[in-house]
Amino acid sequence: MIVALAGGVGGAKLAQGLSLALPPDDLTVIGNTADDMIHFGLRISPDLDTVLYTLAGMANPTTGWGIAGDTTRTLDLLKRLGAEDWFLIGDLDFAIHIRRSALLAAGQSLTAATAALTRGLGVRAAILPMCDEPVATVVETPDGPLSFQDYFVRRRHQDPVTAIRFAGIEAATVPDGVAAALASAEVIILCPSNPLVSLGPILAVPGFRDRLTAAPGPRVAVSPIIGGRALKGPADRMLAGLGHDVSPLGVARLYRDFLDGLVLDEEDAALAAEIEALGLRTLVTRTIMGEADDRRRLAVETLGFARSLTLVARAGR
Amino acid sequence: MIVALAGGVGGAKLAQGLSLALPPDDLTVIGNTADDMIHFGLRISPDLDTVLYTLAGMANPTTGWGIAGDTTRTLDLLKRLGAEDWFLIGDLDFAIHIRRSALLAAGQSLTAATAALTRGLGVRAAILPMCDEPVATVVETPDGPLSFQDYFVRRRHQDPVTAIRFAGIEAATVPDGVAAALASAEVIILCPSNPLVSLGPILAVPGFRDRLTAAPGPRVAVSPIIGGRALKGPADRMLAGLGHDVSPLGVARLYRDFLDGLVLDEEDAALAAEIEALGLRTLVTRTIMGEADDRRRLAVETLGFARSLTLVARAGR
Repeated sequence: MIVALAGGVGGAKLAQGLSLALPPDDLTVIGNTADDMIHFGLRISPDLDTVLYTLAGMANPTTGWGIAGDTTRTLDLLKRLGAEDWFLIGDLDFAIHIRRSALLAAGQSLTAATAALTRGLGVRAAILPMCDEPVATVVETPDGPLSFQDYFVRRRHQDPVTAIRFAGIEAATVPDGVAAALASAEVIILCPSNPLVSLGPILAVPGFRDRLTAAPGPRVAVSPIIGGRALKGPADRMLAGLGHDVSPLGVARLYRDFLDGLVLDEEDAALAAEIEALGLRTLVTRTIMGEADDRRRLAVETLGFARSLTLVARAGR
Repeated sequence: MIVALAGGVGGAKLAQGLSLALPPDDLTVIGNTADDMIHFGLRISPDLDTVLYTLAGMANPTTGWGIAGDTTRTLDLLKRLGAEDWFLIGDLDFAIHIRRSALLAAGQSLTAATAALTRGLGVRAAILPMCDEPVATVVETPDGPLSFQDYFVRRRHQDPVTAIRFAGIEAATVPDGVAAALASAEVIILCPSNPLVSLGPILAVPGFRDRLTAAPGPRVAVSPIIGGRALKGPADRMLAGLGHDVSPLGVARLYRDFLDGLVLDEEDAALAAEIEALGLRTLVTRTIMGEADDRRRLAVETLGFARSLTLVARAGR
């Protein structure tokens, strides 16, 4: 089993690459749920949905999130009825949120509801929420605390971030499926997602980091920072604002307690030596992902790199 | 103020005729909520919606319910995800149900939520739910009790009906707006809706019938039965099954404790004398409503008939 930890768009792209590179049942994606929210009374899981839509081949290729060719008839009428309009939900999106909400209301766990949606869209990979308990990322800013989607979507991630916390995280538990996937993982890949607010919440679920460290296979991350910038979203500004190096080195330091290898972009090749000095192996390659072929290429290279670390480790015994 | 009591399609048609015949702020429609349901976790009020869509000029002209030109993108994907598919909800419908549900979840009454939807769609008439408490029509059949939409939509009203009850009705109360409308009603019109399951629940709200009887203006009904048949729905079979005359006379008997006049179709002209013998006045005219002009014509005739009863009553003093 190959296990990937993924946030939103960037993580979903590599997850899709892995799904194209692997037998269909061999991939488990563990997703962030700390930016979930209740909106229009519906439970919305933006990161799980981005992974789901991308693996189903349905993702909007322009935005990376949402469903290709979706329309906004429902939302347009909701706006006319005075509803909030800052969070874009397509008509097909609504089906996902309505179904998820109905399954949760019927007593299913988020894990079970996500599995039903995944099967319903014909996706063979397993998509597992990081936990079934509600966890909410709170972004502290000079204007006060903001819920994640308020910060990210409504205010277009323009506020300086002075601190990040995950409300409810102390009561979260590692779901059985996540524990089982980690315990049998041949390779664990941290996708190029925001280390602070996308993979950060997953790593913060009590017990998760220990299970990750104890997993049998190597742990390899793909840097979401290239040439001092995030391809998408506020990761670069967040890292800088919170005192981290805005570079693959900064990413390596955040994960160094459990990480075995880091994949970084050719643009950052000069940093490889410094990262290796932390005790990590590195793979330098093109990490900007275009369409499916390119995602598959990075997945194959990352898998090869990770497996080489296994061989090195075995040879060292 | 003209007050109309309305169920679904037939009632909505006459309500639209009244809205076309009256100054825009002079009409109050009191609607049935006993066939409301929670579906996909959303609060659906089929009768209120039919009145709302019809008054907004948005109703699907073919079905009488739903919104003209609506699509089913959301429902189609929901079906693919394994959701129940027997209750048709269009993409625009979903906006109404989502907004209503969100307003209720935020603590608003159904009265307030309905007013917000009514304003949002630009309807000037007031649409008032019969009560704010949950009431559910239960239809007893040889196969056991069925919820109303189960009986009506899923099983296509084919089951023989042995009894009808309104679960929760004893806890229902007449909302202030309904009480005020009745207390100042110049005319009260019972639209041609099913007397048992559409207007029956409204009349069964504790205190409603007394307020109706005490209202200052005359109470006039338009028979939903023409030539021994209901134009739409199971009213004819229900009346027969429960021992009522399937005729304007049977309708008159159901309402005779408070009714002043009955409008019946030319096809039933021979029954007028027998209805008058109950102490009611009658108006015989064409009661099958086609498009807007025809609805307005019946509304004008019904209003004129009702107002003539006021004059007669005044002359008699």
